[in-house]
Amino acid sequence: MATDNTVLLGHGSGGQMMKRLIDEVFLEAFGSPELLVGNDSGVAELAPTGRIAMSTDSFVVTPRFFPGGDIGRLAVCGTVNDVATSGAHVRYLSCGFILEEGFPMDDLLRICSSMAKTAEEASVRIITGDTKVVERGGVDGVYINTAGVGEVPEGVELSGGACRPGDVVLVSGTLGDHGIAVMSQREGLAFSTTIESDAAPLNHLIAAVLTAAPRTRCFRDPTRGGLASTLNEFAAASNVEIEVDEDAVPVLPQVQAACEMLGYDPLQVANEGKMVAVVPADEADAALEAMRASRYGENAAIIGRVSELAPAARPRVLVRTPWGSTRILDMLVGEQLPRIC
Amino acid sequence: MATDNTVLLGHGSGGQMMKRLIDEVFLEAFGSPELLVGNDSGVAELAPTGRIAMSTDSFVVTPRFFPGGDIGRLAVCGTVNDVATSGAHVRYLSCGFILEEGFPMDDLLRICSSMAKTAEEASVRIITGDTKVVERGGVDGVYINTAGVGEVPEGVELSGGACRPGDVVLVSGTLGDHGIAVMSQREGLAFSTTIESDAAPLNHLIAAVLTAAPRTRCFRDPTRGGLASTLNEFAAASNVEIEVDEDAVPVLPQVQAACEMLGYDPLQVANEGKMVAVVPADEADAALEAMRASRYGENAAIIGRVSELAPAARPRVLVRTPWGSTRILDMLVGEQLPRIC
Repeated sequence: MATDNTVLLGHGSGGQMMKRLIDEVFLEAFGSPELLVGNDSGVAELAPTGRIAMSTDSFVVTPRFFPGGDIGRLAVCGTVNDVATSGAHVRYLSCGFILEEGFPMDDLLRICSSMAKTAEEASVRIITGDTKVVERGGVDGVYINTAGVGEVPEGVELSGGACRPGDVVLVSGTLGDHGIAVMSQREGLAFSTTIESDAAPLNHLIAAVLTAAPRTRCFRDPTRGGLASTLNEFAAASNVEIEVDEDAVPVLPQVQAACEMLGYDPLQVANEGKMVAVVPADEADAALEAMRASRYGENAAIIGRVSELAPAARPRVLVRTPWGSTRILDMLVGEQLPRIC
Repeated sequence: MATDNTVLLGHGSGGQMMKRLIDEVFLEAFGSPELLVGNDSGVAELAPTGRIAMSTDSFVVTPRFFPGGDIGRLAVCGTVNDVATSGAHVRYLSCGFILEEGFPMDDLLRICSSMAKTAEEASVRIITGDTKVVERGGVDGVYINTAGVGEVPEGVELSGGACRPGDVVLVSGTLGDHGIAVMSQREGLAFSTTIESDAAPLNHLIAAVLTAAPRTRCFRDPTRGGLASTLNEFAAASNVEIEVDEDAVPVLPQVQAACEMLGYDPLQVANEGKMVAVVPADEADAALEAMRASRYGENAAIIGRVSELAPAARPRVLVRTPWGSTRILDMLVGEQLPRIC
């Protein structure tokens, strides 16, 4: 913005300065037809399937810029991926900024440019937004909320509660990259240069899998809490046991090394560009092939299977280790790494 | 929540503590069928009109509890009202919390209860959500983002750019209540006991006006920047002049007195439960009657009219004073009152 180097309280006033911020920063970056009309809500076409999927995420990641991404790319990917897990055709995003007085305008421009680029990659449009500015100390720089909407095609009924004994579990690529990239950047660790965040929009990958494996039970992106949370949620919702072959789970060697050094389990570390899918056994190969043929899916793998609960047993997730033993994979207890996304 | 008195970092972990927070606080308060399914996006029915309206707002108001409302009621009303201004039937909300470590759980419960009650009043459902917890000092207590979606009925085309010379401007009630209520609470001013925020969901009022005055040009809720911003936006988008009769604008005497004391123009003070409408002259009486018959519209008034720009003149808003003179009503310059919503 030509006129201001930093964000000022007046940029959140609803008055002239806010209009200038909207015109020169947000409309410049996101200028969808719906935004340019300048009304308080974006009106947009939606295929009349009769059902929508909606999701939201707030992003508070620190640092704001990290190897492989930034808070803007995350803010688009996170919500696109969550909406896409329903099988919906993701169409529109809203975007709410909470800015700290004094935030560098150049950083805001860079974040908006990253959001616009990622939205274009995901074929979604930002059609409405909001900006609040709070006094110094009221927020740490910038937090972003996005919400997303898409139309759910007829007949598509995906749910974490739909897993059945015999189903197969796939993951679309290596686990733990995002968590370790952010953490290493934050702590200035030596291995930081070789690990990049995986932040990516996966709606096109999901669409490809659904075409190849139309009876897919569910998708979920293993973000906070990692694969462990996702599979435990599936097991509980479907009342089943899920077994994972530890050897089959793709993990980059440098991520594995970092996890060992830090005492983390890669299965509990956050990802921002990976998708877990559960599919019927007879569609597993087709799903795997579709993932591998998709951008961001080249390292996809079949990593486990769903089985029936023993009588009176509780839903759980087991990991079969390379040595043939099994351990229970629990959801994370406490907090591993605050502000990872 | 039985087990925790304050919000802890672990409540944002994606692990067990977060699951407990979601189950015991959010599902308890908002338990819509879409949320209870427990997937990453809410899937819900939407009438297949082929168009949606979407809007979003983040809420950072301080104090969080004030006469006439709280941040939770604001968070629902603000987004409901923005979506409704398109003429859409508002249906669903998303909700994203950013919580500070140490935030009292009782306050969170109270806020959620207020949101649930307001959502019920507005006939909308919260179908998806997100929670982030940041370390002490990373946010001031709690910030809430909501996004909303509704279906736009066929043939409805409302826009701030649709005002035409001869149209009439209405407002649904007294101006300035919210801004002065929050400000007086914040500053501990003596008149604080008699002024309450007007925070209210106005989608039912809008629907009533649209039925009575189907050729309504546009609605907008005059929040930050007040009536001044709303009318200047309309004038610029429609390339017209708008004239307001100062005498006709409803302002509570105690709000007027506070504004005089503080040097504010009530036409620039924020509202959270008022609607501005522009309608063709021949539908003005019907629109007014519909407003007055609606909850929250008993003090509605016709306050001005739209006229043609003189050749080469720029869009502007004029106020005709009780003494017959006119002054230009500009958008707010700078920031009047940070964190008003």
